[in-house]
Amino acid sequence: MSEKVIITAALSGAGTFKENNPAVPYTPEEFADEAEKAYKAGAAMVHVHAKQDDGWATHDVDRIRATHDAIKERCPDVIVNLSSAVGGNKTSEQRLTQIVEIKPEMASLNTNTMNFGRIDRNTGKIFFEIIFDNSFAMLEEFGKAMEEIHVKPEIEVYDLGGLDNFFLIEKQGFFTRPLNFNFVWGVDGGQKFRPDAFTTLVHALPEDSNFTTCGVADEEFKAIMQSCIMGGHMRVGLEDNVRLPNGELAKGNYELVEWAVKVADILGKEPASPNEAREIMGIKRKG
Amino acid sequence: MSEKVIITAALSGAGTFKENNPAVPYTPEEFADEAEKAYKAGAAMVHVHAKQDDGWATHDVDRIRATHDAIKERCPDVIVNLSSAVGGNKTSEQRLTQIVEIKPEMASLNTNTMNFGRIDRNTGKIFFEIIFDNSFAMLEEFGKAMEEIHVKPEIEVYDLGGLDNFFLIEKQGFFTRPLNFNFVWGVDGGQKFRPDAFTTLVHALPEDSNFTTCGVADEEFKAIMQSCIMGGHMRVGLEDNVRLPNGELAKGNYELVEWAVKVADILGKEPASPNEAREIMGIKRKG
Amino acid sequence: MSEKVIITAALSGAGTFKENNPAVPYTPEEFADEAEKAYKAGAAMVHVHAKQDDGWATHDVDRIRATHDAIKERCPDVIVNLSSAVGGNKTSEQRLTQIVEIKPEMASLNTNTMNFGRIDRNTGKIFFEIIFDNSFAMLEEFGKAMEEIHVKPEIEVYDLGGLDNFFLIEKQGFFTRPLNFNFVWGVDGGQKFRPDAFTTLVHALPEDSNFTTCGVADEEFKAIMQSCIMGGHMRVGLEDNVRLPNGELAKGNYELVEWAVKVADILGKEPASPNEAREIMGIKRKG
Amino acid sequence: MSEKVIITAALSGAGTFKENNPAVPYTPEEFADEAEKAYKAGAAMVHVHAKQDDGWATHDVDRIRATHDAIKERCPDVIVNLSSAVGGNKTSEQRLTQIVEIKPEMASLNTNTMNFGRIDRNTGKIFFEIIFDNSFAMLEEFGKAMEEIHVKPEIEVYDLGGLDNFFLIEKQGFFTRPLNFNFVWGVDGGQKFRPDAFTTLVHALPEDSNFTTCGVADEEFKAIMQSCIMGGHMRVGLEDNVRLPNGELAKGNYELVEWAVKVADILGKEPASPNEAREIMGIKRKG
Repeated sequence: MSEKVIITAALSGAGTFKENNPAVPYTPEEFADEAEKAYKAGAAMVHVHAKQDDGWATHDVDRIRATHDAIKERCPDVIVNLSSAVGGNKTSEQRLTQIVEIKPEMASLNTNTMNFGRIDRNTGKIFFEIIFDNSFAMLEEFGKAMEEIHVKPEIEVYDLGGLDNFFLIEKQGFFTRPLNFNFVWGVDGGQKFRPDAFTTLVHALPEDSNFTTCGVADEEFKAIMQSCIMGGHMRVGLEDNVRLPNGELAKGNYELVEWAVKVADILGKEPASPNEAREIMGIKRKG
Repeated sequence: MSEKVIITAALSGAGTFKENNPAVPYTPEEFADEAEKAYKAGAAMVHVHAKQDDGWATHDVDRIRATHDAIKERCPDVIVNLSSAVGGNKTSEQRLTQIVEIKPEMASLNTNTMNFGRIDRNTGKIFFEIIFDNSFAMLEEFGKAMEEIHVKPEIEVYDLGGLDNFFLIEKQGFFTRPLNFNFVWGVDGGQKFRPDAFTTLVHALPEDSNFTTCGVADEEFKAIMQSCIMGGHMRVGLEDNVRLPNGELAKGNYELVEWAVKVADILGKEPASPNEAREIMGIKRKG
Repeated sequence: MSEKVIITAALSGAGTFKENNPAVPYTPEEFADEAEKAYKAGAAMVHVHAKQDDGWATHDVDRIRATHDAIKERCPDVIVNLSSAVGGNKTSEQRLTQIVEIKPEMASLNTNTMNFGRIDRNTGKIFFEIIFDNSFAMLEEFGKAMEEIHVKPEIEVYDLGGLDNFFLIEKQGFFTRPLNFNFVWGVDGGQKFRPDAFTTLVHALPEDSNFTTCGVADEEFKAIMQSCIMGGHMRVGLEDNVRLPNGELAKGNYELVEWAVKVADILGKEPASPNEAREIMGIKRKG
Repeated sequence: MSEKVIITAALSGAGTFKENNPAVPYTPEEFADEAEKAYKAGAAMVHVHAKQDDGWATHDVDRIRATHDAIKERCPDVIVNLSSAVGGNKTSEQRLTQIVEIKPEMASLNTNTMNFGRIDRNTGKIFFEIIFDNSFAMLEEFGKAMEEIHVKPEIEVYDLGGLDNFFLIEKQGFFTRPLNFNFVWGVDGGQKFRPDAFTTLVHALPEDSNFTTCGVADEEFKAIMQSCIMGGHMRVGLEDNVRLPNGELAKGNYELVEWAVKVADILGKEPASPNEAREIMGIKRKG
């Protein structure tokens, strides 16, 4: 575990729109703007769900490539991490093709099939839901494809069951070390943040692994501080939370990155540069 | 938590056949035999996946009713707990109708959508898999239907994410107390047994809840002992494990029940009778 | 658990001297200065080990009273919490008499006998050690004496064994609710900070309890953030740590209080005023 | 962690008398009898607090040697583990000399100073108490002395603070691997058994360590099963508990060993022979 802390900004998110926060980027240009500001604020990596002009998530390779390239052009140093989820109800092929075509430095690899929705936390009313499909076969196919083209997987863990799914497929032997995990908290369908669940996850990891964490809404801040306390890294961003802890809308991803920098700072740690992050996570720099 | 320990025998299981263990029951008569022996050995409840004559799981109401009634006729005292899963790739309607028609005293209520398969634990090879579909909408629909007709739900928890799914829907207010949970370990798609994950689940429960546990294969025995240590109950049976800890095939569900009775005994606890189990779990006796 | 966070400044400490940090207060006047600055920075309570002019800890009632009164005169609002330890190798009578005479609003109540020393963390060399004596009889005697004169005990917990000592004596029934615990980490003789040990302690508390935490040296910051994440309170101060996370000497207790205020702020919480702290902890205001 | 489980019988105990259970051994002959029966029942090791004819604990080297030798003569195969505590209020020299003189294969090494008493668990009334003195200096002195003469220390851990005391002194580098820990639960002065505290201890150990566990009274059985579940070993015996889980007096240590053998058996494990135990714990056979 490093005293350098990798801060990731999850710039957009399939379910986040300008109606939620006007700073949510849609166009490649807007993504480049947000990425640059996040990078300048301390982010080493940006996580990207590319969008159409109307804000809906897209699996279109050209649009995703344009978004990816706009960011890299503006900000050649930053690590771009592309989502392999690309929005609800996409096919496995739609999800994977763009990764294989664009070959980002890192991409998300989801580890379990799960409900994914929005439920009213007071009344239990179901606003909407889909099934987020991540079969064992997809875990194998996506993982192999990424490793073959040197796209480092960020292994997304929504609960301990997902982690164990990964460990089962990992027995096939094609995943390269170090492994990089992201613990996700507070999605309706995944687990809520609990510190004892967090410690269990950390204890369950192979010794040379890295982990970061993110959480939605009010669970984000506690979960991320927990990660930083335990030697892990931090992911923030408008995908996970459009507001600051004081309830105000973030002016952009950069404000949430600034928040993460404060967390690192009060623990005496420093944000990792993109190259330091590459070294920690075992990513070979591209381009 | 009671010093009486409720032992459940999961008599069959959708994926367990006579090829795995000749004692796996298929016909109503065989279920009645297995139930009776399990009851005499100390089980207060039997969990039932009814089967066709060829051993495949069925959602046919008449067959399930015949199986249910054969058990109750032979063994009027025992609690029958019907699965609401009834095998892979069944529709929501197929899964629920039989419960609504037969109105057992208890039925399983699954809490999360997940991969469900069989993976080679050494090589990571995928033998087969399905998606086990338990959307929020189904959790609401099944839960409401059961509560309306006084079928007590046994809330099946495969990981912390599933428990949190339940808590979200529970906000709707229709679930009656006490709540009865079953923690399931070691399914390929769910979480492996870890004692710290177990304690996290127990800490996450409302205070007046009951819990039992089951696990597949070699994880069964450790998980069940953990439950008994922590004031929980125990589920064994050919659905979960066709062998005894020494590796020999169990001669019937009753041998696994006898094992559970030994666990209770070495902790100075006693198996609950069916009526004691009803009182603990808040089940009103039917028939 | 409150969204208001009680910040305590432990102003001095028996083993902390001006050689460690020139801001460590010795005289009543210096204590008043430090308390006032800490209070203005956001502390609701100050924890006090009174000292002689040469910096050594004292059990002299007049000196402790002068220190207590100087603080209250300068800062009538703040809660003064007197140590019942008052330095190494003091008698039980020396430790208790001052509390009974001065009747502060709160005083520390230590829960276990333990080694207390300083050991080189790299070589294991023992620099010095004493036995910190807190027998069951003292726990009973000190606790009763405090409750009789309405000095609210702050129950100091150095490990789970100490907490269980308290629970044993608490069966006598004289402790008034709510109970207020302080988890201490990183003393050589007590337990090191581990997040899973922290969650175990929190789970072990009665439901209506409050807890705060402190830690020595580099464990301070992580432990305190853990507390704030879990709904607990925060103790900082020159007793526990003379440096900021960046390694620089704190200019005074107030700089460490400012650090704690930042922790609260990044979680969207606010420092409790002394009166809010009294209400949370069940302290009746004196004077 | 081995699938062979080492069962230790703690034959007597400083505070256990024939009034508590007539099978408690006092004379060398009685110790030999109890050891032999325990060994035949499955114990690989016996832990010994030698006693005078009147049942009081002794530090007399001749008596302890006579007790040690009587056991070894009757039962040459069994490992004899001598206590380095030898009863309340003994000097450090009295405690250590006998170990150095007799050179058993293993001896207890206590890791923290603590209250040690008997408190009424319902009323909180203190029946008696002493301070069990185990300073850092003693931990160093005892540990070095044992390692020099190849007496393998059994590191007694009453709470996480004790474990951390050990780790501090272990930095001196004289302790040989593997390390062998014994977690003790339920002593009035130490921690009560809680499964999450147990998992925290196990996670805190170096990877190649062994652990066993014991507990007093009703906590014994749960704690020991927890150990066996987690790959640890088991200590039982009249020192810890004079009764079986059903409340009846054990007829001898052997009945408690038989209980432990049952625990191993229901998990499909086998009791280690003394030589297997030596291999696991890194003990070179003497005599």
